[in-house]
Amino acid sequence: MSLSALAEHTANVPLVDHHVHGCWLKPPDRPRFENGLNEANTEPLASYDSAFDTQLGFAIRAHCSPLLGLPRHADADTYWNRRCEHSESDLARLFLSEARVSDWLVDTGFAGGVANLDALAGLSVGSAHEIVRLESVAEAAITASDDYATAFCRLLDGRAKTAIATKSILAYRGGFDGDLSEPASTEVADAAQRWRDSPGTRLTDRVLLRFGLYQALRLGKPLQFHVGFGDRDCDLHRTNPLHLLDFLRNSGDTPIMLLHCYPYEREAGYLAQAFNNVYLDGGLAINYLGARSASFIGRLVEMAPFRKIVYSSDGFGPAELHYLGARLWRNGIRDVLQGFIDAGEWSEADAIRVVDLIAHENARRVYGLG
Amino acid sequence: MSLSALAEHTANVPLVDHHVHGCWLKPPDRPRFENGLNEANTEPLASYDSAFDTQLGFAIRAHCSPLLGLPRHADADTYWNRRCEHSESDLARLFLSEARVSDWLVDTGFAGGVANLDALAGLSVGSAHEIVRLESVAEAAITASDDYATAFCRLLDGRAKTAIATKSILAYRGGFDGDLSEPASTEVADAAQRWRDSPGTRLTDRVLLRFGLYQALRLGKPLQFHVGFGDRDCDLHRTNPLHLLDFLRNSGDTPIMLLHCYPYEREAGYLAQAFNNVYLDGGLAINYLGARSASFIGRLVEMAPFRKIVYSSDGFGPAELHYLGARLWRNGIRDVLQGFIDAGEWSEADAIRVVDLIAHENARRVYGLG
Amino acid sequence: MSLSALAEHTANVPLVDHHVHGCWLKPPDRPRFENGLNEANTEPLASYDSAFDTQLGFAIRAHCSPLLGLPRHADADTYWNRRCEHSESDLARLFLSEARVSDWLVDTGFAGGVANLDALAGLSVGSAHEIVRLESVAEAAITASDDYATAFCRLLDGRAKTAIATKSILAYRGGFDGDLSEPASTEVADAAQRWRDSPGTRLTDRVLLRFGLYQALRLGKPLQFHVGFGDRDCDLHRTNPLHLLDFLRNSGDTPIMLLHCYPYEREAGYLAQAFNNVYLDGGLAINYLGARSASFIGRLVEMAPFRKIVYSSDGFGPAELHYLGARLWRNGIRDVLQGFIDAGEWSEADAIRVVDLIAHENARRVYGLG
Repeated sequence: MSLSALAEHTANVPLVDHHVHGCWLKPPDRPRFENGLNEANTEPLASYDSAFDTQLGFAIRAHCSPLLGLPRHADADTYWNRRCEHSESDLARLFLSEARVSDWLVDTGFAGGVANLDALAGLSVGSAHEIVRLESVAEAAITASDDYATAFCRLLDGRAKTAIATKSILAYRGGFDGDLSEPASTEVADAAQRWRDSPGTRLTDRVLLRFGLYQALRLGKPLQFHVGFGDRDCDLHRTNPLHLLDFLRNSGDTPIMLLHCYPYEREAGYLAQAFNNVYLDGGLAINYLGARSASFIGRLVEMAPFRKIVYSSDGFGPAELHYLGARLWRNGIRDVLQGFIDAGEWSEADAIRVVDLIAHENARRVYGLG
Repeated sequence: MSLSALAEHTANVPLVDHHVHGCWLKPPDRPRFENGLNEANTEPLASYDSAFDTQLGFAIRAHCSPLLGLPRHADADTYWNRRCEHSESDLARLFLSEARVSDWLVDTGFAGGVANLDALAGLSVGSAHEIVRLESVAEAAITASDDYATAFCRLLDGRAKTAIATKSILAYRGGFDGDLSEPASTEVADAAQRWRDSPGTRLTDRVLLRFGLYQALRLGKPLQFHVGFGDRDCDLHRTNPLHLLDFLRNSGDTPIMLLHCYPYEREAGYLAQAFNNVYLDGGLAINYLGARSASFIGRLVEMAPFRKIVYSSDGFGPAELHYLGARLWRNGIRDVLQGFIDAGEWSEADAIRVVDLIAHENARRVYGLG
Repeated sequence: MSLSALAEHTANVPLVDHHVHGCWLKPPDRPRFENGLNEANTEPLASYDSAFDTQLGFAIRAHCSPLLGLPRHADADTYWNRRCEHSESDLARLFLSEARVSDWLVDTGFAGGVANLDALAGLSVGSAHEIVRLESVAEAAITASDDYATAFCRLLDGRAKTAIATKSILAYRGGFDGDLSEPASTEVADAAQRWRDSPGTRLTDRVLLRFGLYQALRLGKPLQFHVGFGDRDCDLHRTNPLHLLDFLRNSGDTPIMLLHCYPYEREAGYLAQAFNNVYLDGGLAINYLGARSASFIGRLVEMAPFRKIVYSSDGFGPAELHYLGARLWRNGIRDVLQGFIDAGEWSEADAIRVVDLIAHENARRVYGLG
């Protein structure tokens, strides 16, 4: 059977992965590997559980096995043993190159044990660009000077000379509900002093978090927000992007990139229609949904205009994730759009055009990639 | 291939469009047309965007093109140019008559630049009935008399002589969360005085909004609520119909019609099961979901009893919307119910009966149409 | 056409119904029967409505008719008349035995007019085990002694000698949002005195509700929570399981079983991934969704690890519900997993293994069934 033009196109279209982390370069033991396949749990998995018995685990066995010379659906032990025969950097080169990603936009704010920007570049699997995490800038600023606001701006401007975007993890530092207006200078100075007086603590002060967001707006580079699905340190219901409404009403022209979004993808799509500067992706949720990801990808192409949807894997740790995100997105968007074509709702030419928009064109426009 | 009995029936069943606005009678320029295809954004679309690159845009190109003598999926420029060859009233007559709607229930409360009730009637495309917006009655009452409550009731009773239903846009005036009990007379008088002291302002006082709702309950005619998806002036999460629970517990026998409901259609369906007097439709969301609307229509026939679901387009502006709502609903309900039949879950006779209930029987019963 | 191995397996796999109530043993009149098919409404159905015109009604006509010797989709009157030809205990034996459930875990806390544990055991349709409702223990404790806390613990420990699990209906007594920390002894004593001073009132005091939860944690047997879909006495949005986050963070190793979950099944699945001790089922929602239940069952196998999903019918009243829950779950999981196999995402062997996990293995492990 010959592939449809759409199927052939989605299988090969180059991607911009606009939000990703480093992959491992040192081999994990099996518990660490399995915990690397569970996003939400912050504890070691229970003895009666296995991360292989999840949608993500099944998807790895289906899609990554063939790249290691195994049959589809190879069992968990077989997969693990075969994986152990390769060095972690060989696995990284293999999986990342098979993702066929031209540009990796890398959030370097959470990077324990994974490849940094230089190491990623060294894999020769596509260009690597940096995303600056606002909370990391804050943590540098608080120790850099007695004048927090000035130090923050100076550091951010410095980082922005090479960085392509900023990112906020406000979702993990109190959530979106509550005041998101721009704080006054005196409030910022007072809050910085309070934080300085509690050395070693993580930034959770809302005044300083809000200050950082407005500096990112001033910078004008795309501002990414972690939205929805993540680990249990965040209160998931506080990451509903509708709580960003007032902030978005004040956000001007700076592109706001809503990441992951599950289970609030319909709400995020609405925001992408409501605001010229709002974009969304399915990020990490695509990997975790595995065989259910096509259905999720379908919900991403509902209310959001097609020029406002982008691709990311949010891969972190196992290099399988950097590849699988791409594989599942390619298959999922193909099946969703083929369904529209078969129903007579879309033309194939339009479907191919929308694939290009989401795969790379929108990201190239927003991030100013060449 | 011959059509199934269900397919033939849904293609031709007459509809009651129980919530709609006027269509344009004067030609828009292209930016205005494209903004007319974006519900949520209150600003002009960005230069890098096009309302044609959305599910709604694709649906118009698929379903409206043939009515203008173009092939399905004609491109945006071709569609626009062909549309410009016709007068707006010719387009209105064409699209509205092809919707095969016997009765249009028209919300006249937001009518800038669109056909009024008489003009709609003049198109000879079905009977037009008026829905009175409670907030419009309030705006007339505040200037009519020093005794706001009496003036409101007098005006409402007067309008109700010919109007078939009432409507509230509480969703846009603070949302559903918060107190929705009946206010005392003295509270109403005080609130009216406060509003009178701020001439020219829109009604946002919750006391007066609540007062209007209880007058509508007293009247007993169906009371429609905008729910969910709309423009960004409302806080979408404040329009979750579950926030109406206390109000519904006090609403007696007056039919309460929940409009649009996206993305809260499951919650609305639950309320339609929980309260004898609650109904729901998919309204405007069907148009905006385009090729994804069948999936949404499926969610509307989950928890809601089949005698509690009605049809509307919520068309406003481009006459395409008045037609497309009907077209997408016919196709969507056909595909959803055919799926139930093919799975052996429903009989075809039952499916046809449910189509009749949603298409017109429920609305005829609730609104007392002949 | 021969059945696939998966289809054959799901049709026959024995189930553990880990949350169910008694069935009727005395015949209802028709209004009572129809109200028994509406979960959410607490009032008699309106004269213009019929519980047969719902997904549940259609599902009963499709799946229960053949067991009564009627054709699929027999009309409502025919079904009702045929049902009346049988004694209620004959219907109970028929429907419960056809469910092929090895173990019924019975919530005896709401048992008006339905079979108790002994009567269920007497039907010889599987083993019956008791689930103790914490609020019932509280109602016994308040009258048993002036020392509420001691009395509660003594009564709970006594019941736990034979009971297999505990259950909380906090969802109906104020909802999940708000403080769920463990109260101090003095608070408990004071709250008990307040309740004692209002004799005959239902337990709604949050201090005592919280106290009960922590005694259940101490006990260590699985603790079931009603979540989501239920009758309109609860505020549905207050039963979003994400409001349990803080409680779950403190819940240690006691298995927490989230029941029904609709429309919060995605949120519940997230919690099952985030916490080693959290499980979920689709319970009562499966019956009420009828032809739409496969889609719901699909959403249950998204984020939740496959070793954290269990089966229940939540049948109460009409014995049809005890059977139909099983029938719809078998069909639904078969169709969902067959879809994964057909798409090349899962192997059939894995699908059969996951069916066993959800059907009975997970429940056997969690509840310590033989």
